[in-house]
Amino acid sequence: MNTFQYISIAGKLERLINNNTYPVGDKLPSLRTVHEQYQVSIGTALKAFTLLADKGLIAGREKSGYVVLRKSVAQHPLPQGVSTVSGIREITVSKTLRKATFPAPGNTAFISFFGATPDTSLLPFNAIRRSLQQASRDLTGMHLQYETAAGHPLLRQEIARRSFRWNSQLSADDIIITNGALEAIHLCLRAVTQAGDTVVVATPSYFGVLQGLEQLKLNIIELPCDSAAGIDTAQLAHICSKFSVAACILISNFNNPNGVQLQEDKKEAIARFANRQKIPVIDDDIYGDLHFDIQRPTNIKSYDTNGWVMLCSSFSKTVAPGYRIGWCAPGRFTEQVSKLKAVTNIATTSIVQLSMLELLSTGAYDRHLRKLRVTLHKLVLLTTQAIATHFPAGTRISRPQGGLVLWVELPAGINAFRLQQEALAKHIDIAPGPLFSNSGDYRNYIRISCNHAWNRRVQQALKELGRIAHELM
Amino acid sequence: MNTFQYISIAGKLERLINNNTYPVGDKLPSLRTVHEQYQVSIGTALKAFTLLADKGLIAGREKSGYVVLRKSVAQHPLPQGVSTVSGIREITVSKTLRKATFPAPGNTAFISFFGATPDTSLLPFNAIRRSLQQASRDLTGMHLQYETAAGHPLLRQEIARRSFRWNSQLSADDIIITNGALEAIHLCLRAVTQAGDTVVVATPSYFGVLQGLEQLKLNIIELPCDSAAGIDTAQLAHICSKFSVAACILISNFNNPNGVQLQEDKKEAIARFANRQKIPVIDDDIYGDLHFDIQRPTNIKSYDTNGWVMLCSSFSKTVAPGYRIGWCAPGRFTEQVSKLKAVTNIATTSIVQLSMLELLSTGAYDRHLRKLRVTLHKLVLLTTQAIATHFPAGTRISRPQGGLVLWVELPAGINAFRLQQEALAKHIDIAPGPLFSNSGDYRNYIRISCNHAWNRRVQQALKELGRIAHELM
Repeated sequence: MNTFQYISIAGKLERLINNNTYPVGDKLPSLRTVHEQYQVSIGTALKAFTLLADKGLIAGREKSGYVVLRKSVAQHPLPQGVSTVSGIREITVSKTLRKATFPAPGNTAFISFFGATPDTSLLPFNAIRRSLQQASRDLTGMHLQYETAAGHPLLRQEIARRSFRWNSQLSADDIIITNGALEAIHLCLRAVTQAGDTVVVATPSYFGVLQGLEQLKLNIIELPCDSAAGIDTAQLAHICSKFSVAACILISNFNNPNGVQLQEDKKEAIARFANRQKIPVIDDDIYGDLHFDIQRPTNIKSYDTNGWVMLCSSFSKTVAPGYRIGWCAPGRFTEQVSKLKAVTNIATTSIVQLSMLELLSTGAYDRHLRKLRVTLHKLVLLTTQAIATHFPAGTRISRPQGGLVLWVELPAGINAFRLQQEALAKHIDIAPGPLFSNSGDYRNYIRISCNHAWNRRVQQALKELGRIAHELM
Repeated sequence: MNTFQYISIAGKLERLINNNTYPVGDKLPSLRTVHEQYQVSIGTALKAFTLLADKGLIAGREKSGYVVLRKSVAQHPLPQGVSTVSGIREITVSKTLRKATFPAPGNTAFISFFGATPDTSLLPFNAIRRSLQQASRDLTGMHLQYETAAGHPLLRQEIARRSFRWNSQLSADDIIITNGALEAIHLCLRAVTQAGDTVVVATPSYFGVLQGLEQLKLNIIELPCDSAAGIDTAQLAHICSKFSVAACILISNFNNPNGVQLQEDKKEAIARFANRQKIPVIDDDIYGDLHFDIQRPTNIKSYDTNGWVMLCSSFSKTVAPGYRIGWCAPGRFTEQVSKLKAVTNIATTSIVQLSMLELLSTGAYDRHLRKLRVTLHKLVLLTTQAIATHFPAGTRISRPQGGLVLWVELPAGINAFRLQQEALAKHIDIAPGPLFSNSGDYRNYIRISCNHAWNRRVQQALKELGRIAHELM
């Protein structure tokens, strides 16, 4: 019996809901019907219904089986974005950032859709506490001394083992533990560039990476990343032939902010290109573990042949942002990155590595991940529906297949910074679009994180955001 | 009563020290014992001890009477070092480092005097474990999220409170928590310099800082730091008037490797100079808490008036190197450093900050420090004595008043790298002198860490090192 048959059954039921065969309010076929028709166990049938219930499409009713609550979201149009490649530009994102208001962390009077990290209620608090207690029991004198620059060997091994899931065969020696993914990207950049060099970055992209590039005094060329198709690999090759490019930073899966996932052929083409042209490609796969589909997606690194792909990721989006455990697999630059790590801050804290090792090796991480992925999928769907309902006509919304952010294009006249200001007055926060590019694009875009457990307050806040957007038209 | 009876008593005690009845590091009879046995007043007994203390033979310890520092043999001469200022130089220390063999961490077959961190047996293992257990009990959801870039407010407050001890009045807002002191120095350098700038560094100095400068593509001017007198502040002023200097890195107390402590007037002069000339001075005070004297020494920051002194330190030398908790007080550059921290690795791990806060706020840190300082003082004295006994005539040894390293100048013909090679063959490791400068100086110098609990194996190793040095003459 296929373990994942329940997903296929759920998919069939979902289509029957969407095509009005089972309209809102009607009863679905019973568990017994599914059991008999599809020759699956009652347990499997139950799992199919539970999946739909978790997505908020149906609900169990006492003695009357499952009832349809709503269709899964109508396909709204995707955000458009820019289409032309920028020239080589100095980075000035910090000027844009000065225009933005940043939320005070931990201020519970606010409901913040700003940060791209799960709310505390979605994190595995008890498992983390247990892992810390275990780590303090496992503590030996050795752990008080400097860890090696590369990090705890067993933690590196656990991460290397996970590479099997994205069709790589990394070993512990390929991995370097860092203080989060941003440090990983930073070290990789420092290994392959120097001030004044040019780096190709997809646009829109995470402002933290842009700030990092700015601090390293690098120039950038912004390569359009379409909300549906991702980057154009021919365009990438063209840029690299026309300009002297020191490195590229690309996101394999669920690009922050526009959610796009590169298709397999593009991942492969980029890896082939990097290795042939000997251009280091930093493959930021920080959202890869948060896939909504069953299968963990591959990344560009999966197709790396000669070590020109430098994979960066972390557990900040899945376990705890405050843990600061990231890692990279910098391919042929592993030794350089390791040395840079050593001269920058010697090594990453041992104790948190021990705790993370505990979470991975006991399976607690995977158990948590399974739950978190379903929850985030549901939140993304519910938030999408709320935006589609409350925001002005003409609003376009990304359709991420993983991660936890939505990229929202508002009708052209709406200024994202003004929207943020008005929202802040109502104790709601969002991330204005211009933060996600160096060229001041995306003035009428916002990023909304689906990072809160779904409740009335969240629903009200999204409704309020829609009202403000209407007013600003 | 004979007025000079105290001199006779002091003489008796001195003979007991010289004939090893009270060896270095041991406690002398108490004041009360002298008072009772010799039928003299407590005041007279005190005068006898003070006389020996004035000769530098013994030292008073809080609550534990007087401890033997050294025999009244002739003091060994101090290492000499270089006396001329280098021009502006590119940093090439990594080439020198390639010549050195680095010890495999945790290889217990070796006895390593290489690292400048206390051996695990000297660290507060139980207090650390307790603090971690308490931290995991105190853990709240908030701690799973990113800490602010500056760090945990209460930890910053605890550190700010400690500034009272070195005659500063820092507040929590002046402090930024980092992943160790090296990261603190790195961030401070990045805040005030850019690639190609020139930085003044005392020589000899810690190779980790030199490597950091090299990675940031900075040039240096090496300023001689005499084993007795420290740097010449007039020379520093002269260099800064002659060249365009972007920053200086100086060590207030117990310079690694030569142990020298800047006198008060020099600390004050440097701070005054930095503020008048508007040249940022990075004040590396990582060893300041490991003073052998009762009083915690001041630092250059103690005399800062307008925020041009950027103080850097950590708990790596006192609590646990592997904890990676350092901090800086970057004066007028606090905001820039905080931003750099945010774009480099967002924040320092929350959980370790909680544990460190626990160690500081419960007094466990201070209790440990009192013990550690006495232990390290004893180790420094015993190691000095062993070197003076076993090494070739003409060997010169530093006389640090804090920290845990000795800087040893061997007779001119002895090559430090060869000495290291021969020692490694005997499973002993030391740090060769040329690592501590950019110019390949100190070929016949070595740094020996007094980082192991004193035992027969350590004594044998020092004897063996002496034998090898004799052979290499």
